[in-house]
Amino acid sequence: MQKTRLDLARVRAARQAIDPVFLDSPLYPCVGLGTELGCTVSLKLETVNPVRSFKARGTEIIAGQLVANGQDAVVCASAGNLGQALAWSGRGRGIDVTVVASKAAPAIKLDRIRALGADLVLVDGDYDLACERAAAISHERGIRRIEDSVDVETCDGAATIGVELAAAAEQFDTVLVALGTGALASGVGFAVKSLAPEVEVVCVQPQGAPAMTRSWHERRVITTETTDTIADGVAGRVPNPDALADLLVVADDAVLVEESSIVEGMRLLLEHAGLVVEPSAALGIAAVLEDRDRFAGKRLATIVCGSNVDMPAYQRWVGTAPAAAVREGLLGGI
Amino acid sequence: MQKTRLDLARVRAARQAIDPVFLDSPLYPCVGLGTELGCTVSLKLETVNPVRSFKARGTEIIAGQLVANGQDAVVCASAGNLGQALAWSGRGRGIDVTVVASKAAPAIKLDRIRALGADLVLVDGDYDLACERAAAISHERGIRRIEDSVDVETCDGAATIGVELAAAAEQFDTVLVALGTGALASGVGFAVKSLAPEVEVVCVQPQGAPAMTRSWHERRVITTETTDTIADGVAGRVPNPDALADLLVVADDAVLVEESSIVEGMRLLLEHAGLVVEPSAALGIAAVLEDRDRFAGKRLATIVCGSNVDMPAYQRWVGTAPAAAVREGLLGGI
Repeated sequence: MQKTRLDLARVRAARQAIDPVFLDSPLYPCVGLGTELGCTVSLKLETVNPVRSFKARGTEIIAGQLVANGQDAVVCASAGNLGQALAWSGRGRGIDVTVVASKAAPAIKLDRIRALGADLVLVDGDYDLACERAAAISHERGIRRIEDSVDVETCDGAATIGVELAAAAEQFDTVLVALGTGALASGVGFAVKSLAPEVEVVCVQPQGAPAMTRSWHERRVITTETTDTIADGVAGRVPNPDALADLLVVADDAVLVEESSIVEGMRLLLEHAGLVVEPSAALGIAAVLEDRDRFAGKRLATIVCGSNVDMPAYQRWVGTAPAAAVREGLLGGI
Repeated sequence: MQKTRLDLARVRAARQAIDPVFLDSPLYPCVGLGTELGCTVSLKLETVNPVRSFKARGTEIIAGQLVANGQDAVVCASAGNLGQALAWSGRGRGIDVTVVASKAAPAIKLDRIRALGADLVLVDGDYDLACERAAAISHERGIRRIEDSVDVETCDGAATIGVELAAAAEQFDTVLVALGTGALASGVGFAVKSLAPEVEVVCVQPQGAPAMTRSWHERRVITTETTDTIADGVAGRVPNPDALADLLVVADDAVLVEESSIVEGMRLLLEHAGLVVEPSAALGIAAVLEDRDRFAGKRLATIVCGSNVDMPAYQRWVGTAPAAAVREGLLGGI
């Protein structure tokens, strides 16, 4: 494998820095989902921890470094989950955490960032604007800035998921991973390709936020003017060149999916696993729905990467169960 | 501690017989839920495995015994989850599994039992009638019958949860556990009281199915004529005397909760953890809701024991999110 910014020994050592509540997440076959999709589907569940996403694996590493370096403040831009995770990791270590986010981010994410004691700065724009504001705060205050996929620790944290998946590699042909800034995909991909190169790594991004996927296919950074997707966790416009370079080494493919497939993926995870997930967490299932022939009979693993979703929005998108209840005249009373 | 049917060395050995996919389930603080309830709440999540309940811990032990004994058929009565777990454990070992269940059991439980290849026999009555029918089938066919809480392996399986909880005992004052036949409660209670006697074990049962709780308080078997609860997984009328005897040793308290509290518990688990759970899994939260003063400031763990629930029924009960969506005029379209 060509060189990347990641290093397997460093990733393995990083596990020691991460609170065990975030490690060794469940990995299990969802039989009903597999039957529905005509393949075997195992879920790697990154939502059953105190911040309901995988991001704390990375922020635990970072917070440990800050303490070791005697730094007591940090700032990050976030679509919502990184900020929540950094707030969690900082809180227990006496670190002053500032999070910059879009005011359009899901309320649940913003509320949880505040509830965990971080300073929340809202910008009237998208994730990439939040990144600019975070850079300015970092400069003004002289504090470390964390940027997803740029700070390699965010990739190292994700790579610990890949190490856990690789330990069960004999169970899988393909790992499906959500693609946003590239931290999750390059981290998981690196570990899987290092330890189980026979397992295919497929990245999945929404059609409405295709910058990194287009960049991967053209092997150069392609930006977009806007994004248009419900998958707020992966809606970036400006890929980082280092993250792209790593992804070019470790990913076997990158595909785009429609919004309707993401919604159907969310619905299937509700129906067959009892899991309410955020749109980004359903990207893997969406990819199978859009190319059933490709995945027919395959043994798949998909990373359910976050569950911080506003319930009214969730119901508006998924709607199936309440619609069925309404149809059957069942709503109201017990 | 007085003697029970359980034995700690046997429980520890039993872990070896259980597929690791069912062991070491997530245990994590749900911060939002704790804030809501004025205490610390950790979830022990028994729903993120292939059968979406804790029951396979016991059926794995039993299936291993059947194989060791050269027995290739087994029958059980089930409210739905035991049957699904036995079907799972038997399927991989070439064991012919027959499950007797009420035709009123949730469709998802009956469908999954069939999907896992078991013979499903339906009775026009409740769980206790299913037990009688399973006994008759066992007698007619000369095959082993498994009865929840009567076959001590069902308690041993549950006790492996208790061992895992006890390993984190310094984090908890009280463990809240659903009470039905008593297998879960006596198993968990036995392990917790053996390994961490300072941790309080509180059993929770619905007002509408109070037989075991009444029996525990009166220290003798009390049966009821009927049950009336949405918590199908714990709706028994006829407590087993051996299970009661064990429960009298290992439980510190047994409380009854209203249906409305169970529903509110389900809603809170949806809102704060993104988990769709069956009613029995919300009993612990329901107990806190009904006695906030008792649990104020306490560090609680509750076992989320199952998530096999029909979605139309779930929406009819919980209804909050769709109701909110309707209120906000958000239903329909993306």
